[in-house]
Amino acid sequence: VPPGFTITTEACNMYFEVGKVLSEELKEEALQHLRALEAKMNKKFGDNQNPLLVSVRSGSVISMPGMMDTILNLGLNDDAVVGFAKLTENERFAYDCYRRFIQMFGDVVMGIKHSDFDAIIDDQKIEKGVTMDTELTAEDWKAVIVKYKALVKQETGREFPQDPMEQLFMAVEAVFSSWNNDRAIYYRKLNGIPDYLGTAVNVQSMVFGNMGDTSGTGVAFTRNPSTGERKLYGEFLMNAQGEDVVAGIRTPLGIAEMERVVPQAYEQFKQICSTLENHYKDMQDIEFTIEKGNLYILQTRSGKRTAQAAVKVAYDLVAEGLINKEEALLRIDPNQLVSLLHRGIDPNATFEVLAKGLPASPGSASGQIVFDADEAEERGENGEKVILVRTETTPDDIHGIVKSQGILTSRGGMTSHAAVVARGMGKPCVCGCEALKINLADEVIEVNGQTLKKGDMISIDGATGNVILGELKMVDPELSEEFKTILEWANQVKRLKVRANADNERDAKQARSFGAEGIGLCRTEHMFMEQGRLHVVQEMILSETLEDRKKALAKLLPFQMGDFESIFREMDGLPVLIRLLDPPLHEFLPDIKELIKEVAVLEIEKPDSDELLQKKILMAKVQNLSEMNPMLGHRGSRLGVVYPEIYEMQVRAIMGAAVKMKKEGYTVLPEIEVPLIGINNELTKLRQLIVDTAEEVLQEAGVEVEYLVGTMIEIPRACIIADEIAKQTDFCSFGTNDLTQTTFGFSRDDAEGKFLHYYIDNKILENNPFAVLDRTGVGSLMKMAVEKIRPLKEHYDIGICGEHGGEPSSVEFCDMIGLTYVSCSPFRVPIARLAAAQAAIRNK
Amino acid sequence: VPPGFTITTEACNMYFEVGKVLSEELKEEALQHLRALEAKMNKKFGDNQNPLLVSVRSGSVISMPGMMDTILNLGLNDDAVVGFAKLTENERFAYDCYRRFIQMFGDVVMGIKHSDFDAIIDDQKIEKGVTMDTELTAEDWKAVIVKYKALVKQETGREFPQDPMEQLFMAVEAVFSSWNNDRAIYYRKLNGIPDYLGTAVNVQSMVFGNMGDTSGTGVAFTRNPSTGERKLYGEFLMNAQGEDVVAGIRTPLGIAEMERVVPQAYEQFKQICSTLENHYKDMQDIEFTIEKGNLYILQTRSGKRTAQAAVKVAYDLVAEGLINKEEALLRIDPNQLVSLLHRGIDPNATFEVLAKGLPASPGSASGQIVFDADEAEERGENGEKVILVRTETTPDDIHGIVKSQGILTSRGGMTSHAAVVARGMGKPCVCGCEALKINLADEVIEVNGQTLKKGDMISIDGATGNVILGELKMVDPELSEEFKTILEWANQVKRLKVRANADNERDAKQARSFGAEGIGLCRTEHMFMEQGRLHVVQEMILSETLEDRKKALAKLLPFQMGDFESIFREMDGLPVLIRLLDPPLHEFLPDIKELIKEVAVLEIEKPDSDELLQKKILMAKVQNLSEMNPMLGHRGSRLGVVYPEIYEMQVRAIMGAAVKMKKEGYTVLPEIEVPLIGINNELTKLRQLIVDTAEEVLQEAGVEVEYLVGTMIEIPRACIIADEIAKQTDFCSFGTNDLTQTTFGFSRDDAEGKFLHYYIDNKILENNPFAVLDRTGVGSLMKMAVEKIRPLKEHYDIGICGEHGGEPSSVEFCDMIGLTYVSCSPFRVPIARLAAAQAAIRNK
Repeated sequence: VPPGFTITTEACNMYFEVGKVLSEELKEEALQHLRALEAKMNKKFGDNQNPLLVSVRSGSVISMPGMMDTILNLGLNDDAVVGFAKLTENERFAYDCYRRFIQMFGDVVMGIKHSDFDAIIDDQKIEKGVTMDTELTAEDWKAVIVKYKALVKQETGREFPQDPMEQLFMAVEAVFSSWNNDRAIYYRKLNGIPDYLGTAVNVQSMVFGNMGDTSGTGVAFTRNPSTGERKLYGEFLMNAQGEDVVAGIRTPLGIAEMERVVPQAYEQFKQICSTLENHYKDMQDIEFTIEKGNLYILQTRSGKRTAQAAVKVAYDLVAEGLINKEEALLRIDPNQLVSLLHRGIDPNATFEVLAKGLPASPGSASGQIVFDADEAEERGENGEKVILVRTETTPDDIHGIVKSQGILTSRGGMTSHAAVVARGMGKPCVCGCEALKINLADEVIEVNGQTLKKGDMISIDGATGNVILGELKMVDPELSEEFKTILEWANQVKRLKVRANADNERDAKQARSFGAEGIGLCRTEHMFMEQGRLHVVQEMILSETLEDRKKALAKLLPFQMGDFESIFREMDGLPVLIRLLDPPLHEFLPDIKELIKEVAVLEIEKPDSDELLQKKILMAKVQNLSEMNPMLGHRGSRLGVVYPEIYEMQVRAIMGAAVKMKKEGYTVLPEIEVPLIGINNELTKLRQLIVDTAEEVLQEAGVEVEYLVGTMIEIPRACIIADEIAKQTDFCSFGTNDLTQTTFGFSRDDAEGKFLHYYIDNKILENNPFAVLDRTGVGSLMKMAVEKIRPLKEHYDIGICGEHGGEPSSVEFCDMIGLTYVSCSPFRVPIARLAAAQAAIRNK
Repeated sequence: VPPGFTITTEACNMYFEVGKVLSEELKEEALQHLRALEAKMNKKFGDNQNPLLVSVRSGSVISMPGMMDTILNLGLNDDAVVGFAKLTENERFAYDCYRRFIQMFGDVVMGIKHSDFDAIIDDQKIEKGVTMDTELTAEDWKAVIVKYKALVKQETGREFPQDPMEQLFMAVEAVFSSWNNDRAIYYRKLNGIPDYLGTAVNVQSMVFGNMGDTSGTGVAFTRNPSTGERKLYGEFLMNAQGEDVVAGIRTPLGIAEMERVVPQAYEQFKQICSTLENHYKDMQDIEFTIEKGNLYILQTRSGKRTAQAAVKVAYDLVAEGLINKEEALLRIDPNQLVSLLHRGIDPNATFEVLAKGLPASPGSASGQIVFDADEAEERGENGEKVILVRTETTPDDIHGIVKSQGILTSRGGMTSHAAVVARGMGKPCVCGCEALKINLADEVIEVNGQTLKKGDMISIDGATGNVILGELKMVDPELSEEFKTILEWANQVKRLKVRANADNERDAKQARSFGAEGIGLCRTEHMFMEQGRLHVVQEMILSETLEDRKKALAKLLPFQMGDFESIFREMDGLPVLIRLLDPPLHEFLPDIKELIKEVAVLEIEKPDSDELLQKKILMAKVQNLSEMNPMLGHRGSRLGVVYPEIYEMQVRAIMGAAVKMKKEGYTVLPEIEVPLIGINNELTKLRQLIVDTAEEVLQEAGVEVEYLVGTMIEIPRACIIADEIAKQTDFCSFGTNDLTQTTFGFSRDDAEGKFLHYYIDNKILENNPFAVLDRTGVGSLMKMAVEKIRPLKEHYDIGICGEHGGEPSSVEFCDMIGLTYVSCSPFRVPIARLAAAQAAIRNK
């Protein structure tokens, strides 16, 4: 409570400590508080005694749907109402309060439908021939109360409780129970609020906003919760109790109107708002009541706000001298920033959602439906806006994806090809939208009874998974000056460097504009999948001899060099970490299931054809390369060990590009990374290959370029031999996606579709470990690795790349165990910067 | 060297310490020894000085193909031979020695073909018109020597070295180099001999077995290396040097003949054999030479022996008081015992190998070729012996496998379905025999130009991978009395208990007969795959509702109960650990690739048929259940969490069977195991389910049965939370197959076929980690888990099951980190018992 300030005149503020399971001691103390009320809550009102009626509400610091509404007028009963009428000299008012109490208590505590009570009032009005509540008299309310109590008896089998203490205990109990109400649980899950937080209960003495035209009630934010602007924002209603403001029968007035209606109270309110802000040092969300011209504050708490407002308020509070920069940094939820970093649907647009898929890659887009990747490419190049719609995408669709505004698929999860590629490109994607029945042959979509055809305009929102018919206005992301400043402050306090995952020039540019301090992961496989290269890659893979493979690789070399040149140029002066080829080779080949089908058909239709023979040969080769568990298969460094010529080509391309850029005057800092090391000898062999090749390129060119050689730590065994790995490398980077897969024994592709949702819904797991780093398991292994490395190499770079690198809780853990940097998608760089700053402050 | 015993009269025994990389100091000492010889190795022989000629041979403790042969007569040159002739008064002998030296040295040190030298002798004989070497005179040998030297010059471009010291250093160098000769490397890999062991070089003064009829040379074992019988075994040749014994021109005599030919030397030899055995306390393999009636021992080392001999010799040496029981236990290589534990081809049988596949499951069998599982079952039940030949097997073939003598497949690795099932059943299996072109339609096999048809008799040897045409005599394994006694000794010293993996009555019986102390892993999935059940299992999996699934499970319950009853009966009084269902459900369904093919064909041939519709529905369901990485998929405890009704049925069956057997008077000790735990809450939930179900069964029956609830530790995260796991369980067991897969990030199915062989061949890995437990990686995690558990629960059972449990080095590691028991296939129980004893002795 602010100093020298009483929130209600005669209050009993019971405040159970939030965030702690109620201990026996606290419980006893709370009960004493409640029992102390007994003396004040007279069963019989009368005389000049100031009677105590109370309100009971949740004292949760976070407002939450499903939590119990405030119960007003508690303490009234058949006797007390008589005294209350005398005391207030307003019988109608007193009985209105009593029936309001029965209705609210009956609804939220005793579980009787609100509308059943309303029906009784409606009956009374019909009987009287009136239309408004205000036209009902004290006698009417008395009649209503009789029927209300009968309803309670009928529905619950018991009388409406007359003992104020019984009323009080029941209401308190109801507040606590409502914490575990389905809607509240769902809301908490959605917003990552822990269940153990729990709620307090506030019991306050009543003041009345419904005591005539000089009374009223309202809610207000001390600043605009949508924009952050420093101006009171809210509404109020005269001669009303709290529930009337939300009931919608009468239209509340804007808060600024108070100045005209109750100027004195308004002036006082403004001052109180200021006092509260100064005390809590944050924007407040305040409930108030005016009783006969006197202002009472019922509740104040930090106000919920949009990301934009959060940034502005934090910035302004520093400017106003209320908080310092570190406090400002802690005030902004990094997760909330996503909406500021992607093109989004205009917040003012209205629309109807046609179907909902998985929010696979954030950002929104509108475009014409196109079903074919070639057509998407062609029309995209002609400047048309298209959305590529497929059941699933494959590497063959990449060229179409590149030229589309966004991707929509009916199958596949958050790690399907479409999702991964789209996230990599920062392109909006909704996938696994099962409501869409896509008929590729006829180029139509059936969805909930509607038929969409090629060329129809749709919009998708990759942050929500919404699919919307028609075109919508979009707004571009723009970092406000306040946001930029706050990120500057973040840089001043954070210990972790923040790099970005970027596979091409465009991503590198985006990353740099968001403040990335280098590239922490450049995946070369996406380059292999690009149009015009894939067939050369396939030729390389299907080579029967080393010579043929080398020939194909030679064709790829100039492509790869070009890729790296443009990235080095964009990242002039910053480190660029390039990972050598990682996925198993069969990922670049046609799908075996398709081939089986094609061969089966050809065997019937063209049994002796050369086409069949060729297809069978291809099928046999694909079959030979395919794997039971590709995630644990012939990939990463295992490719490099068995086919050193592939890595040799890649190193030649990296160093060739570095040399060229250096000659053009750029500062290049290449870092060459070997994926999936588990055995020391893999590293010995590949490091040698890399160094030999790099030195050869440099010697040929007669140029000196500093370069580093490192590896990923992404399987448990690599954590165990981290000291040996450190001895042989210049840096390492945790690949926590794969490390999570192997530590849990979860295949992400399978787990998310098959049992992970069940696990999270049923509390087997608190979080999806692929989204939020599992500190117990995966984290222990990481910590062990860092502890093995640091004594050997104090200043050795240890990073993390992949989705955890941009997730705030995971970033905090990385700071705690002493990593050097995190790397995340370009669009999450600002989030990671803020999260890293918060971690540094919290872990100080 | 045995006390008071000189091996050769005037010897310089250079013996580099074996097992150690030659240190600089040792090298210096060795060089000093060599240089000391210089004084004795006169360039010019003459006068009465006793000239020093030497032999140079490898001093490796293990004889090894590919290692350099002994070089005799080193020190001779154009001058020395003159003096040597004078000294021996035998010019022909001296020049024969010299030409032998040039030939041997030229061959093994200078790399000239032995046959090129022989051709010169042949020319000389033609010129002289004689046929035998012995018919050549000193003059002939002089002529041969001139040509020999010319050949050396021509082939190597240099003169034959005349300086004895140069000869000596070259020979020593050649011995060392031969350690890394291809054949030696291959042999070491095959026999698990480490490369770092290295060899010594022995330089000995020459004695001559070719000095006439009172001279000779031979080799002998002090006991029979095949049977272990205590009787000299070997052969010798008079008037010969070592190479003549093996050259095959003259037939050596059996060692017993020495008594007749050189009685005095024989008597002395017998005594020396006895002395050497007493000294080395082991059977010796001895080379000797007799020079003019005097016996010289050239070399002695422990003799190689068969498993049978190893057992008998160890047993006898104890009986003879030479070694104690612990020493005897250490004398037997547990790996070698495999041959004694399976039915094998009669060692006296001769045969030709038709083709070679992978040695997937040891044991041998003969039978008629059958291509169809139903036919195999039918003919097997009629008492015919059949070998089931398939490209690959599937769960649908199980009934045929059961009734076959053995299985032969043309595709699939050591972990293919056929291999796993066969090993589980202890049935011989050769798989992945790619030379077989199996035509199932016509029921014929093309193999290396031959055609085999149904009914042809073949034999397979699952220990070697050999496929042989025709029937062969087989010998049954029988534990000799000596073997049984030694295993008793093993039980007296070992700390680890040895249990067996057994899924049925037959395996349980076998395990018990081999001394298993309980069942350490009973896999319930094999029961699900049996004929007559698989379709019910499929019905269960494809159920649309919980009710339907429960109905199908109810049908499975009596089958499962019956399985467990028979196992409990067989294991009366011993613990039986039963693992709840582990594999992903799609493993029980038809192969998706087959379905795709069938649907493609039906779409053309019967486009509107109900058959197509049904097949498509099935395909969609299978597709829906299939996984990208089944190894990391919806399996193990994850099945139990999502489908508790499956585990409930299994627990009901286990406890129902236990109750029934207890009522029949048996002592049942069931241990119920949850597979693949990674998260504490999985265990909490499943333990509750198991306990609730078990208590319900016991209460219904009114019988008390003690049972334990435990889990497998088979993913890295389980090792990390092992303390939490221990708190909730009565035991745990390491599943090191899966733990190896997840720790390395290796899919066994893929790794073994794709890159693991390359890794081992190229020394990236020392061993296949699926065969020999990886102590560095997997072992560290196990050790960590044990260290987390032991402070909490000192006497808690921690086991290991799977193939490592029967592999000696892995068993040793389990002993070192303090596990309670190992569990392995029934046939490896004796091996594990011996290995456990050795571990206990070594780790004492």
